[in-house]
Amino acid sequence: MEMMPFWEKLFILLFIYNGRYTNYSMEQSDLIVRRIKDGTVIDHINEGKGLKVLEALDIDGRRGNVITIALNMPSGKLKKKDMIKVEGRFLEDDDTNKLAVIAPSSTVNIIKNYKVVEKRHVSLPNQIERIFRCSNPDCITNSQEHIESTMEVINKEQLVLKCRYCGRILDVNDLRYQKKD
Amino acid sequence: MEMMPFWEKLFILLFIYNGRYTNYSMEQSDLIVRRIKDGTVIDHINEGKGLKVLEALDIDGRRGNVITIALNMPSGKLKKKDMIKVEGRFLEDDDTNKLAVIAPSSTVNIIKNYKVVEKRHVSLPNQIERIFRCSNPDCITNSQEHIESTMEVINKEQLVLKCRYCGRILDVNDLRYQKKD
Repeated sequence: MEMMPFWEKLFILLFIYNGRYTNYSMEQSDLIVRRIKDGTVIDHINEGKGLKVLEALDIDGRRGNVITIALNMPSGKLKKKDMIKVEGRFLEDDDTNKLAVIAPSSTVNIIKNYKVVEKRHVSLPNQIERIFRCSNPDCITNSQEHIESTMEVINKEQLVLKCRYCGRILDVNDLRYQKKD
Repeated sequence: MEMMPFWEKLFILLFIYNGRYTNYSMEQSDLIVRRIKDGTVIDHINEGKGLKVLEALDIDGRRGNVITIALNMPSGKLKKKDMIKVEGRFLEDDDTNKLAVIAPSSTVNIIKNYKVVEKRHVSLPNQIERIFRCSNPDCITNSQEHIESTMEVINKEQLVLKCRYCGRILDVNDLRYQKKD
């Protein structure tokens, strides 16, 4: 049996507590820690697509909720990823479909009470209604007729979207979104 | 003197290490920790201005460096702030002047080897050369004459910028930047 004096135990206890809090507070100006209580984490966003995802999901901070974004984080040995965390917002189906086009490798984690309660991989459906605007100004979906757009996914690997009404092939790097009413 | 058996010491040691790593790795999917080694931290960005600062400083992740952005973080009792951290980039004077217009409360921390080596408050100079584009399409600074713009700061509190050549008052919510050659 070894003997440990009281002061040595005290030192260890102080070290434990110091370790727990120091990780957060040391040089606080260059450490962001953001665990969200309720909201959505979009992880494994394809490299370089983080800000496009923000734009697609209409995330700009104006609603006041806490948002954390990381770009070019290391992911595995050779790759990078972007990540977005949005407190107080849960992604809807339309959002997930947009992600499937812009950042097909993404995963969506729904967080409730600090715990991951749902994990979703985004996947491309066969057709996407309503979300994207046809780039053809003469398309009937851009007229006054109030016809919602329908984009057919004619090639999932190549990410080719085609307007069902006028046949226009969309440029996936220049997608436009229907304004919400 | 108190006696502490070996297993009790081992338990404490394991607790220490678990504490140090668990803070980072527990529920990893919803924790971003980003301490930068060398780069810039822009702190106390006025609420809602974070994405405008990204745009002004041409930060979009395309250069591949790690960028962390936090929007609507609590700052003091009643306020919020945005924060941006850019690894591997040090803000230049032109950048600091842009910040002074867009987010006048910002502070800039230059980080080297994980330590804050310089703290700057952004401040509005009396005139800003070259950075902003005059919104008057007929202004001589927008012609072929290659005359650089000069914006006079005629009111620092109200943030009023006036083109020295044509007298146009700029809309600070719709600033345009000179393209870099």
